[in-house]
Amino acid sequence: MRVYTYFRSSTAHRVRIALNLKGLEPEQVFVNLLRGDQHDASYLAKNPEGFVPFLEDGDTRLSQSLAIIEYLDRTHPEPPLLPEDPAGAARVRSLALVTACDMHPLTNLRVLKYLKNALGLDPDARAAWARHWMEAGLAALETRLARERETGRFSHGDRPGLADICLVPQVLAARDRWQIALDPYPTLARIYENCLALPAFAAAMPECQPDSEPPEQARQG
Amino acid sequence: MRVYTYFRSSTAHRVRIALNLKGLEPEQVFVNLLRGDQHDASYLAKNPEGFVPFLEDGDTRLSQSLAIIEYLDRTHPEPPLLPEDPAGAARVRSLALVTACDMHPLTNLRVLKYLKNALGLDPDARAAWARHWMEAGLAALETRLARERETGRFSHGDRPGLADICLVPQVLAARDRWQIALDPYPTLARIYENCLALPAFAAAMPECQPDSEPPEQARQG
Repeated sequence: MRVYTYFRSSTAHRVRIALNLKGLEPEQVFVNLLRGDQHDASYLAKNPEGFVPFLEDGDTRLSQSLAIIEYLDRTHPEPPLLPEDPAGAARVRSLALVTACDMHPLTNLRVLKYLKNALGLDPDARAAWARHWMEAGLAALETRLARERETGRFSHGDRPGLADICLVPQVLAARDRWQIALDPYPTLARIYENCLALPAFAAAMPECQPDSEPPEQARQG
Repeated sequence: MRVYTYFRSSTAHRVRIALNLKGLEPEQVFVNLLRGDQHDASYLAKNPEGFVPFLEDGDTRLSQSLAIIEYLDRTHPEPPLLPEDPAGAARVRSLALVTACDMHPLTNLRVLKYLKNALGLDPDARAAWARHWMEAGLAALETRLARERETGRFSHGDRPGLADICLVPQVLAARDRWQIALDPYPTLARIYENCLALPAFAAAMPECQPDSEPPEQARQG
């Protein structure tokens, strides 16, 4: 098994957590997104979408972090990342999709580049954009997780799963990259801390990866 | 079963197709997104994310179109919307996620409003934005569907499923809303036509819905 990854990508971060929870250690190929490796013809020949993560497993070639994680959950069922019951699985997927559809796509590298290069937005206007969508998503997640009775130590009960896998990289980006204070989101902050106390989550953090770079270098893009 | 929906929403459109394929006819509640019904306190009390579609089924409350469709597929297994094998299911999910993560979130109503109201972009600049992300996603999907051997009459073999459910509303939006010619995407155009030949897809089209409005009225937002 081989995974194409990048330390700062929050979608690659999701897959790292899932791999760690499953106890899998695939070969890693580092695709430096700031340098533009994802636009190389050799990479696009593998993955025409031009993103990380990308998984090779035997004859299987897979893009899209949530599809990769669901695949890993099917092929390596223990520990499960989704509840067995249809309503529980759907709840976890819906929480994951708030991050995957409503937050991350609006604040990833290619969008920030478009805001800068095509629309001429200055750093403050770009940060306002990112915070606007981040805060909308964080507020929705906080409201749901605080009131839905299935929430436990983690997003769904007392075992980490797909919703937590999506939550942690996004909360990290909100707090550290966009300087969003977590005080209005105490349930998210609590789940984040409970996750980070687990080795699978701690070892998946960007700064622990072999391709990590010092912040000043990584933020130039 | 009750579904909160809006004729022009392409995520609600996905759920309509899935319901039709499953032969389900839930009660429909119409949430007029252009009028801002999704921001009403009574709707946000149900669904803090403030989007459609939203599903109520017994005690289950569900947001996020892909989570809803996977739930319907578990609770009403025939006809299946995902292949049985893990690699096939992952491929279909990955195709669906290209639309759900890389295309739709960048071109939906709230983003277009932000571009207009917060960033002051004129209609041409907003259309350039939408076409930019649409064309990137369409090109990636075309490359994949044209070369991957699992593609058949539909996105995965000869039975319609989750990937087609996501594809059709997005191709429709690309062609009719953003005037993107489909000539560079012959595989997508072929699958789109094959889908529309099926009653489940034809009956789910926006203009067939009870809440549909004439185009000039619907486009004012």
